[in-house]
Amino acid sequence: MSSSWGNQIKLSIFGESHGPAIGVVLDGLPAGEPLDLDVLLSFMDRRRPGQNRFSTPRKETDAPHILSGFYQGRTTGTPLAVVIQNSDTHSADYAQMSSVARPAHADYTGYLRYHGAQDPRGGGHFSGRLTAPLVAAGGIAKQILARRGVVVGAHIFSVGCQNDLPFDPVGLTAEELAAPGQKTFPVLDAKAGESMQQLIESCRMAQDSVGGVVECGVIGFPAGVGSPIFDGLENRLASLIFGIPAVKGIEFGAGFEASRHFGSQMNDPFRLENGQIRTTSNHHGGILGGISSGMPILLRAAFKPTPSISRPQETVDFQKMEPTQLSIEGRHDPCVVPRAVPCVEAATALALLDAWMEKIE
Amino acid sequence: MSSSWGNQIKLSIFGESHGPAIGVVLDGLPAGEPLDLDVLLSFMDRRRPGQNRFSTPRKETDAPHILSGFYQGRTTGTPLAVVIQNSDTHSADYAQMSSVARPAHADYTGYLRYHGAQDPRGGGHFSGRLTAPLVAAGGIAKQILARRGVVVGAHIFSVGCQNDLPFDPVGLTAEELAAPGQKTFPVLDAKAGESMQQLIESCRMAQDSVGGVVECGVIGFPAGVGSPIFDGLENRLASLIFGIPAVKGIEFGAGFEASRHFGSQMNDPFRLENGQIRTTSNHHGGILGGISSGMPILLRAAFKPTPSISRPQETVDFQKMEPTQLSIEGRHDPCVVPRAVPCVEAATALALLDAWMEKIE
Amino acid sequence: MSSSWGNQIKLSIFGESHGPAIGVVLDGLPAGEPLDLDVLLSFMDRRRPGQNRFSTPRKETDAPHILSGFYQGRTTGTPLAVVIQNSDTHSADYAQMSSVARPAHADYTGYLRYHGAQDPRGGGHFSGRLTAPLVAAGGIAKQILARRGVVVGAHIFSVGCQNDLPFDPVGLTAEELAAPGQKTFPVLDAKAGESMQQLIESCRMAQDSVGGVVECGVIGFPAGVGSPIFDGLENRLASLIFGIPAVKGIEFGAGFEASRHFGSQMNDPFRLENGQIRTTSNHHGGILGGISSGMPILLRAAFKPTPSISRPQETVDFQKMEPTQLSIEGRHDPCVVPRAVPCVEAATALALLDAWMEKIE
Amino acid sequence: MSSSWGNQIKLSIFGESHGPAIGVVLDGLPAGEPLDLDVLLSFMDRRRPGQNRFSTPRKETDAPHILSGFYQGRTTGTPLAVVIQNSDTHSADYAQMSSVARPAHADYTGYLRYHGAQDPRGGGHFSGRLTAPLVAAGGIAKQILARRGVVVGAHIFSVGCQNDLPFDPVGLTAEELAAPGQKTFPVLDAKAGESMQQLIESCRMAQDSVGGVVECGVIGFPAGVGSPIFDGLENRLASLIFGIPAVKGIEFGAGFEASRHFGSQMNDPFRLENGQIRTTSNHHGGILGGISSGMPILLRAAFKPTPSISRPQETVDFQKMEPTQLSIEGRHDPCVVPRAVPCVEAATALALLDAWMEKIE
Repeated sequence: MSSSWGNQIKLSIFGESHGPAIGVVLDGLPAGEPLDLDVLLSFMDRRRPGQNRFSTPRKETDAPHILSGFYQGRTTGTPLAVVIQNSDTHSADYAQMSSVARPAHADYTGYLRYHGAQDPRGGGHFSGRLTAPLVAAGGIAKQILARRGVVVGAHIFSVGCQNDLPFDPVGLTAEELAAPGQKTFPVLDAKAGESMQQLIESCRMAQDSVGGVVECGVIGFPAGVGSPIFDGLENRLASLIFGIPAVKGIEFGAGFEASRHFGSQMNDPFRLENGQIRTTSNHHGGILGGISSGMPILLRAAFKPTPSISRPQETVDFQKMEPTQLSIEGRHDPCVVPRAVPCVEAATALALLDAWMEKIE
Repeated sequence: MSSSWGNQIKLSIFGESHGPAIGVVLDGLPAGEPLDLDVLLSFMDRRRPGQNRFSTPRKETDAPHILSGFYQGRTTGTPLAVVIQNSDTHSADYAQMSSVARPAHADYTGYLRYHGAQDPRGGGHFSGRLTAPLVAAGGIAKQILARRGVVVGAHIFSVGCQNDLPFDPVGLTAEELAAPGQKTFPVLDAKAGESMQQLIESCRMAQDSVGGVVECGVIGFPAGVGSPIFDGLENRLASLIFGIPAVKGIEFGAGFEASRHFGSQMNDPFRLENGQIRTTSNHHGGILGGISSGMPILLRAAFKPTPSISRPQETVDFQKMEPTQLSIEGRHDPCVVPRAVPCVEAATALALLDAWMEKIE
Repeated sequence: MSSSWGNQIKLSIFGESHGPAIGVVLDGLPAGEPLDLDVLLSFMDRRRPGQNRFSTPRKETDAPHILSGFYQGRTTGTPLAVVIQNSDTHSADYAQMSSVARPAHADYTGYLRYHGAQDPRGGGHFSGRLTAPLVAAGGIAKQILARRGVVVGAHIFSVGCQNDLPFDPVGLTAEELAAPGQKTFPVLDAKAGESMQQLIESCRMAQDSVGGVVECGVIGFPAGVGSPIFDGLENRLASLIFGIPAVKGIEFGAGFEASRHFGSQMNDPFRLENGQIRTTSNHHGGILGGISSGMPILLRAAFKPTPSISRPQETVDFQKMEPTQLSIEGRHDPCVVPRAVPCVEAATALALLDAWMEKIE
Repeated sequence: MSSSWGNQIKLSIFGESHGPAIGVVLDGLPAGEPLDLDVLLSFMDRRRPGQNRFSTPRKETDAPHILSGFYQGRTTGTPLAVVIQNSDTHSADYAQMSSVARPAHADYTGYLRYHGAQDPRGGGHFSGRLTAPLVAAGGIAKQILARRGVVVGAHIFSVGCQNDLPFDPVGLTAEELAAPGQKTFPVLDAKAGESMQQLIESCRMAQDSVGGVVECGVIGFPAGVGSPIFDGLENRLASLIFGIPAVKGIEFGAGFEASRHFGSQMNDPFRLENGQIRTTSNHHGGILGGISSGMPILLRAAFKPTPSISRPQETVDFQKMEPTQLSIEGRHDPCVVPRAVPCVEAATALALLDAWMEKIE
């Protein structure tokens, strides 16, 4: 299997970059949940490239068509299918599969996996375009969570070595979570955002690309949800977030930083605050023993630089078994991180809703 | 659910720290695989604490008893159950559940999750002791992989800010992978190991603890195994490795470091070597698009400091809803990382065997 | 969950009778399998009602559109999505959900399950129309099996008390399996078919309906596929075939008849035939211990009479909580069995391919 | 996989007839459920052979040892493992695997499936003894259901052509459900029971065996639980009940009989009774569209005759590939049906609890 996920909510993503359509089936959603399609569209819109996001050529094709599971403005509880047409692809341009492996892409591994039968056009099923149905599904999950007081938000934590401010791990608010998504460039600190944008632009000029980190935060998620060992919130979140192309690392709370510190620094003391149990710090990222603690859930996902760069690169032709050089043409995003922000929100919302569904309804 | 995992191989771990026994059921193993129980015992032995590992009081209890699925020295293909007795636990000592939440432990979240019905003695099902069946299962998977030429090994990558040498990402050998496991303190660089041990010892003196990172490498795993999107090798490995207590982050290949670099630095050029396709560097950690590339698979898991420290800590009594102070008594390991090394190997071996089982047999 | 199924091949069916479209995603198909779309269309065509099947008003809407997973005439190995438009439905006619429970329908239970949020038009997700994507998926599975020498076929075993001849349990041939599907009314014995059609017609005249049994046979399926206990071929086949609306029973080989006989009668002696192990009789229906024996696989599924009959029926309004009478209008098929034949073939092919996928590729 | 099952409750059964022990892990049980171990033992006791059930040689070995998930008399919510020792098996007697296929047994198919590596002693993992852990698990599920007012009971519906009275499909009571289980021979009509016992005894005399049918009923299960298509109650129940060895058919409500009748006879009219919606008849067996209706759930499972008969039988040696004759020695139960009664109850209870767990807790 490849593209199915979930315990309570089964998620089945399908499609290739240049096929007729891409989409997702969500099976197991609670029944009777109102969905605001304008909110969904505007969430999906955040997946578009940087400042020009409202004018990209593929804009109109990204409208989600709900084929099932949605009736009179509410979820029915039966499978909800969303399809997004790939109307303006130029399939003929790609009719010949290239056997020249683009470095850091899945051309070669996909060829081995599918014995050459995979659709190679534009990356096929491996394309970043497949995050569109993920974002559609996650946008639906976000609305269902929001109605229960759970707010999910993310921002660019870093691009290369340029860092944004982190989310406040203890006092995180809905406003702070929502703010980045309302900006063209989703950061907390506008200054940091400008430096990042300059760095990205300089990569574009240099025919290069750059990586970055997305931080995602969640408030309002009830304490006591999740499970020990293999079905913990961290396991679930990681298994879904690694489904976003280019993710090479994930950490929760203090994460890798925790490995460099002492227990006396990292243990979060419990305290009472207005009759509620909270912690004075939040190095645990809202998850202890795989189970939510009631504190903000915090995670960071590391994205590698966009593999498609137009500089000449050394590689091989895996059918001729010959070394060769490759220059990747076309406009490519020198940094996927800005567009990855709603993807991480989407995956986070889906994983948390799935975990919570063991309890709610 | 909490403690079941797997697509081809179903893994079901059970037990509590102070119950009668802990164990694991492995369903879906290939039939007819010879298992060397001495090799298994010696692998499980690596999970014991540091230099005194051959003399710990619970030593004799950790012998695995295979109840099923193993006949005349070989796997039968039907479920293999392993049970490890908890013979010398002093259950009576713990008969009263404490409602004083140990910071950074799952006492409070477990209480919420199970409404107070969980077995609280010694951490119950959340105890690090539950890694013993994981290591037993992983030791079996390691042997099955080894017979097919796949070698899995790990070492302490860092303790606090003390770093070992990293595995050679391109030219990793079976010897390099096996070396750390043959030492009392599993590192590549003996000098670095000494510094780490001093740091751990100083933590013990200071009634404190420290975190660290385990690096795991795999060679011989065939190219073309795995799947895009949700069922990639990274997703599977992460979902299993977060089942080891205290893991707060995971990264593959260059991981978080990749997020701070340029595409021209991180893209691994393909090349031909003795008629085989390889890459000249290995920032991708042997996985592209969720699928193995044939290069060494490399991952690092970040462990937080041991939560149990004997210094007084601020916390709350979650039944009385009162603030209180807590001093955790008993001897606790000031750093779980040395014992976590075989745990990471075990989880890695299980995840890779599970992925590969879609093909082999 | 409701509409997902499978171990190796994940099947996700979506849609409602009067929504925009219905469809299915098949994840985990082997890569590189050629599919003949004409053969698929002609298989799907067998799901149409009796003798007038080429002229039904909804004919043109049942063309399957493959959105993904199919490239240059072959499966890609990534998810294959099929969508079937519901173009000529008259949604407005049904805009008001009726709270008068049609007897033997899922109106009332579906209302409870989905708290009134389900799409009630034409039965919604419970509609027999949802077998169209099942048949599409099964038609694909049939082609993949056929290329490996496995032939799946079914016929009407009985309508009411009118019986067809049974399949030859020992000497079943591909011709015998294919014959019923080539007829307008899929039986082996034309005479029996006439009696059945007369019985169906008399039910129509009497504003009544009638049930029946479909028998399905498979040859060429290799011995040794399946598993004991919960993942046997019988478990898998049953779990999928009960997904066809109106199925109320299933039996394998001698089935219920076996319960009325002696071991000396029912035990199938093994024998050698041209160097192959076979049995002289086939009361076990090709499955022993959940595993295929190499003999023809034989099963029968019992269908209840069509619940929609135009006679007045006693029932209740479950919102007003009042007794009432109901006369169901519109033309309804007085017997679903003829159209159910390809549904049972489809489900059988999917279950067997899924089981076999643990081995092949 | 072979021996894992479940959505909410994961069930993992392990063991072989003559290995050290057999058992089951139940993952996902609700926390805090009191379990009465005497009630459990007495339920498991019903699985023993006929009138001599309190004196069989293996009696003492069937005591279940709970290793985990049970603390201070209640479920903890973490995995509950039950182990049953095989203490008095004479493994040496069977040390040589026989390659003479017992007709209607899984010797030959199991050999193919596991390439000869399976444990052949006493049927190994295919043995009817593996129903002991199923009954243990089901006995736990029964207690959890009973506390919520759900009563599950079964009886021998028929042995050969001797029929018991059926359960009252509309007015079924807890007393009627409990009565058969309190008798040595679990029937409703004592007279019918005597005829059955005579028939079984005559089979024993004739070195033969006979099949039969078990009927299971459930009352108190809430309406509105289950799902359409693949995850309906019928699908779930069937997929579990076919895990009991020798089951060759299953039917719900009127089942196969429904296929021989008219809609006007089989449609169950809804009516109001004391403000509750019920049906005046119950041909639907309490399930409509895969979802419970609130009426008694009724199913029947058909068991083939015990395959082990001492008469000489024709068969083959599948290693020598030679025809041969076989006389099976030892005392074998000429009819498994009496002992199968609690197995069907157990499987039914597990499937219904699993389905209900999507809602309760």
